[in-house]
Amino acid sequence: MAGRQNEWRGIFPPLVTPLLDRDTLDVPGLERLVEHVLAGGVQGLFILGSTGEAPSLSYRLRHELIERVCRQVAGRAPVLVGVTDTAFVESVSLAARAEKAGAAAVVLASPYYFPAGQPELLEYIQHLAPELPLPVFLYNMPGYTKLFFEPDTVRGAAGLPNVAGLKDSSGNLGYFHRLQACLADRPDFALLVGPEELLVESVLLGGHGGVCGGANLCPRLYVDAYQAARKGDLPRARELHDRIMAISGSIYGVGRHSSSYLKGLKCALSLLGIAGDFMAEPFHHFRAPEREKVREALLRIGILG
Amino acid sequence: MAGRQNEWRGIFPPLVTPLLDRDTLDVPGLERLVEHVLAGGVQGLFILGSTGEAPSLSYRLRHELIERVCRQVAGRAPVLVGVTDTAFVESVSLAARAEKAGAAAVVLASPYYFPAGQPELLEYIQHLAPELPLPVFLYNMPGYTKLFFEPDTVRGAAGLPNVAGLKDSSGNLGYFHRLQACLADRPDFALLVGPEELLVESVLLGGHGGVCGGANLCPRLYVDAYQAARKGDLPRARELHDRIMAISGSIYGVGRHSSSYLKGLKCALSLLGIAGDFMAEPFHHFRAPEREKVREALLRIGILG
Amino acid sequence: MAGRQNEWRGIFPPLVTPLLDRDTLDVPGLERLVEHVLAGGVQGLFILGSTGEAPSLSYRLRHELIERVCRQVAGRAPVLVGVTDTAFVESVSLAARAEKAGAAAVVLASPYYFPAGQPELLEYIQHLAPELPLPVFLYNMPGYTKLFFEPDTVRGAAGLPNVAGLKDSSGNLGYFHRLQACLADRPDFALLVGPEELLVESVLLGGHGGVCGGANLCPRLYVDAYQAARKGDLPRARELHDRIMAISGSIYGVGRHSSSYLKGLKCALSLLGIAGDFMAEPFHHFRAPEREKVREALLRIGILG
Amino acid sequence: MAGRQNEWRGIFPPLVTPLLDRDTLDVPGLERLVEHVLAGGVQGLFILGSTGEAPSLSYRLRHELIERVCRQVAGRAPVLVGVTDTAFVESVSLAARAEKAGAAAVVLASPYYFPAGQPELLEYIQHLAPELPLPVFLYNMPGYTKLFFEPDTVRGAAGLPNVAGLKDSSGNLGYFHRLQACLADRPDFALLVGPEELLVESVLLGGHGGVCGGANLCPRLYVDAYQAARKGDLPRARELHDRIMAISGSIYGVGRHSSSYLKGLKCALSLLGIAGDFMAEPFHHFRAPEREKVREALLRIGILG
Repeated sequence: MAGRQNEWRGIFPPLVTPLLDRDTLDVPGLERLVEHVLAGGVQGLFILGSTGEAPSLSYRLRHELIERVCRQVAGRAPVLVGVTDTAFVESVSLAARAEKAGAAAVVLASPYYFPAGQPELLEYIQHLAPELPLPVFLYNMPGYTKLFFEPDTVRGAAGLPNVAGLKDSSGNLGYFHRLQACLADRPDFALLVGPEELLVESVLLGGHGGVCGGANLCPRLYVDAYQAARKGDLPRARELHDRIMAISGSIYGVGRHSSSYLKGLKCALSLLGIAGDFMAEPFHHFRAPEREKVREALLRIGILG
Repeated sequence: MAGRQNEWRGIFPPLVTPLLDRDTLDVPGLERLVEHVLAGGVQGLFILGSTGEAPSLSYRLRHELIERVCRQVAGRAPVLVGVTDTAFVESVSLAARAEKAGAAAVVLASPYYFPAGQPELLEYIQHLAPELPLPVFLYNMPGYTKLFFEPDTVRGAAGLPNVAGLKDSSGNLGYFHRLQACLADRPDFALLVGPEELLVESVLLGGHGGVCGGANLCPRLYVDAYQAARKGDLPRARELHDRIMAISGSIYGVGRHSSSYLKGLKCALSLLGIAGDFMAEPFHHFRAPEREKVREALLRIGILG
Repeated sequence: MAGRQNEWRGIFPPLVTPLLDRDTLDVPGLERLVEHVLAGGVQGLFILGSTGEAPSLSYRLRHELIERVCRQVAGRAPVLVGVTDTAFVESVSLAARAEKAGAAAVVLASPYYFPAGQPELLEYIQHLAPELPLPVFLYNMPGYTKLFFEPDTVRGAAGLPNVAGLKDSSGNLGYFHRLQACLADRPDFALLVGPEELLVESVLLGGHGGVCGGANLCPRLYVDAYQAARKGDLPRARELHDRIMAISGSIYGVGRHSSSYLKGLKCALSLLGIAGDFMAEPFHHFRAPEREKVREALLRIGILG
Repeated sequence: MAGRQNEWRGIFPPLVTPLLDRDTLDVPGLERLVEHVLAGGVQGLFILGSTGEAPSLSYRLRHELIERVCRQVAGRAPVLVGVTDTAFVESVSLAARAEKAGAAAVVLASPYYFPAGQPELLEYIQHLAPELPLPVFLYNMPGYTKLFFEPDTVRGAAGLPNVAGLKDSSGNLGYFHRLQACLADRPDFALLVGPEELLVESVLLGGHGGVCGGANLCPRLYVDAYQAARKGDLPRARELHDRIMAISGSIYGVGRHSSSYLKGLKCALSLLGIAGDFMAEPFHHFRAPEREKVREALLRIGILG
């Protein structure tokens, strides 16, 4: 059930959620965005992750998003759906929606209000995974959840029949390599990296791909970087890594807060005419001065012509 | 609308949520618990806080709990309802349920997935409070939310017509005193302390009461401690503080994790025959060895006869 | 050897270190400061703590300071000397200097570069205390050392013959009360609180005194607050607590960084003509705009006439 | 003065400090260790870093170590000396010793007791670097110092004539790549990575080398891995990376604490007969059960024959 080997290899953009206001999808924006990333050759789409502002969205809107994206994609690529929740029952409910809509997998970070210990985290996954009717990707996001998936916990969870892989957003490749080592006998278990700044090197050393926010903007760039790294074409991989760093270093660094990544990304998509930049609370979109800086960065990098 | 001065003074137990399983209320247990704490002379009840495991519960169950408790209390004391959520729209929806059920106020911690800055936190409250049809208590819980309500943010929020007070669970009384100082011209603004270990001293120095978990167990003890401190009866206040510390030092310290407080409390309530000790994921109840230690502690302290 | 009971009760100002430059004591300033605090009726002096910038000072200057202060005080009050160091051997060496100069006790925080576990911390104290020829105060300063003295560790260390007490600068009175409870059979073991904002309440509930930075400035205020709290004179204790909060809320909050406390304190001493405000790297004194704010605060509070 | 370009490229083992007791060097062990790493073809030696337990050692012993190592190496490779200290004056003094002994450079982390802000950190370096008579490597070690060298701070410091490079032990390659980007116009500025688990990939993407603890044990392995990565020999680089991970995953993971890396390394050197495994407080060497596990790991990996 956890999928054919090689199914979960490549670039899976964590889709931003285009909004008109805090509880209204920007439907044309969403449609343009989905086509834009699919046209870039991505391996699949991941909706309702951190980049998708999932925790800030009403359940009603999350359901609508799941249904719209699955319907539009219509099997052209697997859709992964974030079902992370502090409430077990709500994760089950989201996963049921996802399965019914035709999603290919769900993505699950740890509960993020109460700080659980590792045995509790493993038990949580052991209880929850059997209730989820799709392959499950674990999602290590300690900066937001306050909780690391320790390698032994991942090893334990990987023994469950539908746990198919892990996305690591810790930014710590030493940890990522420890995961690779302790799952060396499980080549079917997909290890994806979150921060796009680490895509190229993780794939050069055996990682299976990335969940790169910037692929909302330039999907082809990340797909090409993945391919170059996978083939071991080092000069090309380095060149594309430098382009990725140019995006990261300019567009994501405009504001002062840790939310600058997300604000910069939505702002850039809006400047490209793909989708509006409204953000759900507790965030708000960039105001004019930051927007101007993002515009200049897009021009400088050559994304805006 | 933020309530008559002196309405929000005293002990407001953060009710545990008695469960039969992860999505089923222990209704008789809940009824016994509500009567038990009301009989202890508490000033009000706070449901769906951290002690109530709110983030771990389905919305359906939260709605059921709101309705049952408000119906049972039937105006005998104000009911405060936690509406903290990562999604603005869900907080509004919970508050509407609470108001309709007859609750007296809502309690709001910061969103707890994305790390907001202070200006974003203030803006969030400024957007949200007007949508909440009841008095609002802010809830400073940085250990779980990763975000402090800085004094300037509280000062700003306190200017909103329905923001009535703040519960501080930071454990840092230096911060609490800074809040008192910067709200010295607002004697109607209630400042309650979370950790019961700090109840007596905060009230001795002008605090307005406590949201004490132990009051699920021995409501009268905390009410008496509050009264003694409020009246400046120092010998009595010290004696009751020592009893509170005896509970805290034994029952809450049995396990190894930060969840020991909650597990010990539910275990003790179960040993007293008030309500079962089932816990929603990611936690589980104490097993036999820990349960035995809690039983011994209850005997030693004289709560179990 | 750990001293007569009641010797370690009261206010022990953590002396700032007056400097002319990074490696030169401001000798006249130091002499004025020592007389100023002694005249205020303090129980003893604590030199080379965090407030004394000890880790930023050369060993040569630390030795000079120990000798000058002990000579000047000349038995009028006990002198406590900070010997915290990352190197065991240097702590031993500082303590030998302190003993030779006539100091009454040494103060020891945990090593602060490598993060030790609790068993390692206890073993460290068990190795080190016998090498220290004076009574030892433990110093819980997790914000700077990254390491808490867990109650069990303190309990273990308190069994050593010359470990006489603990100064807690964690700001967490719940922890302080747990220490009180687990040392209830050791009334001779002194428990002092660091943050002056917590002095009154900790003494009201059985604490033994405070190591209050503000006592450099207004020693009498803190001595009076201690006495009022110790006698249970609640109205007076509250009034003095409010004055302490007025100092804390104005003078220590002028800058943006966590070093504002220290900068504000040195700035205020300089405005009072007691000692210069030079600070050792990595800090620097307040520039003119901050200095003006501190001056206004001193005028408003009535410290500057 | 900051050295010829290409001088600071390659593997610089952070030498462990062989000890007989807390204040006595294991001189024959030290001599064997120095010859062992030099024979492995390393580019230089780094003494008195975290791996060298520098903060736990007396200044006397640090001086002895500097002199012995420089005398023994006798120009066969550059010796880098850690001069990090909480006291400015002591850093200057250590650097003077290093220069006199013939060291090639000094290494400087931020002061690690008081938490400085970034402007204070930059100013600290601006004050200190001119007092240091050798090229200076910055050392980003936030896990121990609580302070990150933000890219703008590094950029500022890199403008000083003798600041020659930076060693990053944060484990965060996203940060490392941001440094590379913001110093793209300074190809002479050396960027070295601390954690050996990240050596291969950082060099594949333009990093200049590593300060790898494991090179105490198997210097040739790390030199070969560096060379393979530098030449872009990807299959060979991957193979050597896997061997590095095998060491890291077994020898450094035996104990429970963050000090396991250091304890495992010293234990392994002792099993190889190179140097004793005594550790300065607050640490102690592995006892028999952990030692046996390290022995088994060395056999399994093929380091012990």
